Amino acid sequence: MTYEINETHDPELQSWVESANDPNTDLPIQNLPFCRALDTKSSGDIFVGVAIGDKVLELSDDVCAALGTSYPFGETSQAVITGVSPQRLSELRRAVSRGLASDAADDVRETLSFDLHALDDCEILPAFRIGDYTDFYCSIFHATNVGSMFRPDNPLMPNYKYIPIGYHGRASSIVLSGEDIKRPHGQNRSDAEKPPIFVPSRNLDYEMELGFFVGQGNELGSPIPIERAEEHIFGVCLVNDWSARDMQGWEYQPLGPFLAKNFATSISPFVVTMEALAPFRTKAFERAEEDPRPLEYLSSERDRRFGGLDINLEVYIETERMRKENAAPFRLSRSNTKDLYWTIGQMLTHHASNGCNLQTGDLLATGTVSGREKDERGCLLELTWRGKEPIEMPTGEERRFLEDGDEIIMKGFCEREGFRRIGLGECRGRIIPAE
Amino acid sequence: MTYEINETHDPELQSWVESANDPNTDLPIQNLPFCRALDTKSSGDIFVGVAIGDKVLELSDDVCAALGTSYPFGETSQAVITGVSPQRLSELRRAVSRGLASDAADDVRETLSFDLHALDDCEILPAFRIGDYTDFYCSIFHATNVGSMFRPDNPLMPNYKYIPIGYHGRASSIVLSGEDIKRPHGQNRSDAEKPPIFVPSRNLDYEMELGFFVGQGNELGSPIPIERAEEHIFGVCLVNDWSARDMQGWEYQPLGPFLAKNFATSISPFVVTMEALAPFRTKAFERAEEDPRPLEYLSSERDRRFGGLDINLEVYIETERMRKENAAPFRLSRSNTKDLYWTIGQMLTHHASNGCNLQTGDLLATGTVSGREKDERGCLLELTWRGKEPIEMPTGEERRFLEDGDEIIMKGFCEREGFRRIGLGECRGRIIPAE
Repeated sequence: MTYEINETHDPELQSWVESANDPNTDLPIQNLPFCRALDTKSSGDIFVGVAIGDKVLELSDDVCAALGTSYPFGETSQAVITGVSPQRLSELRRAVSRGLASDAADDVRETLSFDLHALDDCEILPAFRIGDYTDFYCSIFHATNVGSMFRPDNPLMPNYKYIPIGYHGRASSIVLSGEDIKRPHGQNRSDAEKPPIFVPSRNLDYEMELGFFVGQGNELGSPIPIERAEEHIFGVCLVNDWSARDMQGWEYQPLGPFLAKNFATSISPFVVTMEALAPFRTKAFERAEEDPRPLEYLSSERDRRFGGLDINLEVYIETERMRKENAAPFRLSRSNTKDLYWTIGQMLTHHASNGCNLQTGDLLATGTVSGREKDERGCLLELTWRGKEPIEMPTGEERRFLEDGDEIIMKGFCEREGFRRIGLGECRGRIIPAE
Repeated sequence: MTYEINETHDPELQSWVESANDPNTDLPIQNLPFCRALDTKSSGDIFVGVAIGDKVLELSDDVCAALGTSYPFGETSQAVITGVSPQRLSELRRAVSRGLASDAADDVRETLSFDLHALDDCEILPAFRIGDYTDFYCSIFHATNVGSMFRPDNPLMPNYKYIPIGYHGRASSIVLSGEDIKRPHGQNRSDAEKPPIFVPSRNLDYEMELGFFVGQGNELGSPIPIERAEEHIFGVCLVNDWSARDMQGWEYQPLGPFLAKNFATSISPFVVTMEALAPFRTKAFERAEEDPRPLEYLSSERDRRFGGLDINLEVYIETERMRKENAAPFRLSRSNTKDLYWTIGQMLTHHASNGCNLQTGDLLATGTVSGREKDERGCLLELTWRGKEPIEMPTGEERRFLEDGDEIIMKGFCEREGFRRIGLGECRGRIIPAE
């Protein structure tokens, strides 16, 4: 198995890139996520690289040669991640790990140093060309909370425990962390006695999700068995599925959310590989005794034992006033992907179970990751119970939904005794006023 | 306005491509749709061309030079249609029309002949790289019929007359006319007393739709006013939105159809430009007195007067037995896009009204086009009223839903007194068994 723990996960491993040895970095040598970048201080082209500490190593031909490997993603000049096997990706990871380790040979270190860019100098671009984007709804706590608000007697649909519910999102409006989010206009019918009005959204929300990218795709008409699902997953990122709740409530029947979601979706810049996550695998969600077992096409022993992911997710808000007063961002929630009812393998296998073809770079996301507790709710809709219980913040401010100037900062990280902490980086986005 | 009737629509216009003068052709000189093709008998590359009669004119550099124009879609070698203004497209249309007209100069005719390919020798490829695909639900007759089956007391949702309801489809599984459609597996819970089972779909259906491609896109955050909507539409094609009704009924709540639709969507090969359709524009759907008027962002005088499209749509079925017995395909329905409740301009403007960015090549489709009458229902779900009233065919066969070997053949054409008939070609797909 390519997702087993190996020497690249050794917590004692240090790098000659000093910043990677900082105990607080998201990017130690045990992480090595991929990204696409452009060094704005040099005259180079866009490149695919591996982030470490406060640097990013360009996978140039020279670097690959020095590492004793070859560039795995088609032509270097294209600078686009293409589908590669997990074995090939693992081989590359080991080579990069050896080359960046403290005990790397001097000549390797010299060659690598030449193509090591300061992250601060780089414009980070989306790692993949995202062909299709699919969003699931896999937190049973989120689904139950949201269902309770709209259908108190029947919060969970009868299909929920059989199907990893998902729907197609919009690929074109996926933006990278740091891009501002303009408050969208839309139809609002909060007053059911009157016709709807077309106004800037009044109930703007975020959703804290985990995203995962397809590495190798499948042919149209060829499903992916659950045993092989993870071979098709390249890695993960953070996703903020911005949502206009007022528009959503009015438009979503009978075909699902549309304009309430497709004005923007933010993703974090680094793709943390499945192999980097190997130490943080955990068992799939433990279903209640009375819950049905997953159907056979969604079941495997390995998925049951290791299909879960122990990734901590945190959401912070930074208001205009906090920035003015130099106050720290306020934490709205923390949750964990191990509380998802369905595994990412089940989501992927279900998606392809009718023969739907997944392609390299397709983004799949989990849906809002909420937990059992009140402070584990991954969106304002849940946290404020549809705006009825506003959140009070140390600045004395209140929030039902997002206001102009609010910045949402999402973080993700993995911790486990005996292993080095790794992070997914941040996913940020600030609300700017409607025009 | 670029959509006005001009000399390219002159019904007297004849071409030196003799087959274009056949009164039954879909492709007279008054049509001139775009396509992407590869001549399998020559050693050439993929090219963008214009179809006429039984030929396709490659828009090579030589051809463009002979026509006194330049290739409008970026590099010829890319052979991909890129965003161009309606003015530029209109200029090209006039040039192609002059060059293919009976009275074209001998040297022009000679140059064009050299890059004129037999359609029969060509493999036709999707005209655009489709980034995102959106499907609407704009036939009020379809929505009312389907709603009646599932919610007899309340067939139409309260949002229907305010919002052109739509949802995101899957771009990766869009295939060209002629590709076989494998019956998908999926969860089926027709017996509500038992757990769902994972089986090949038992209620496989088609949906007769009109598709339209985005020519020039809009920036994220910049809506498209209704007055300018059509400037962003390149042209139209036929769409078969294959649907597995058993899967759809079980999975679709609360986020809409997913696996019931994304196993395949077929499109016809030619893109008929908006300018070619100019003679077949008609007023928007006439709303009942008691219906609300569209909100202001979806209203314009021009859209009201000319936003409709008078396109006849026909659906035929050819069963295995019909092929064996050399029986003609059986017509299941005929309908017309003028019966759509919303115009394509309204669909596009609504889509971008929250700032969602549409991109060149994005495909938008109308949803099933049904009319008032029983024989105008654009899918089997409606025609057989959920399978309760099977269709009887001249071969003595019956259909509730599609069987293996059934081929669905969709046709589209425009006719108007004083104008030459033009056609959209065919969209075909045959059901092959699940594996």
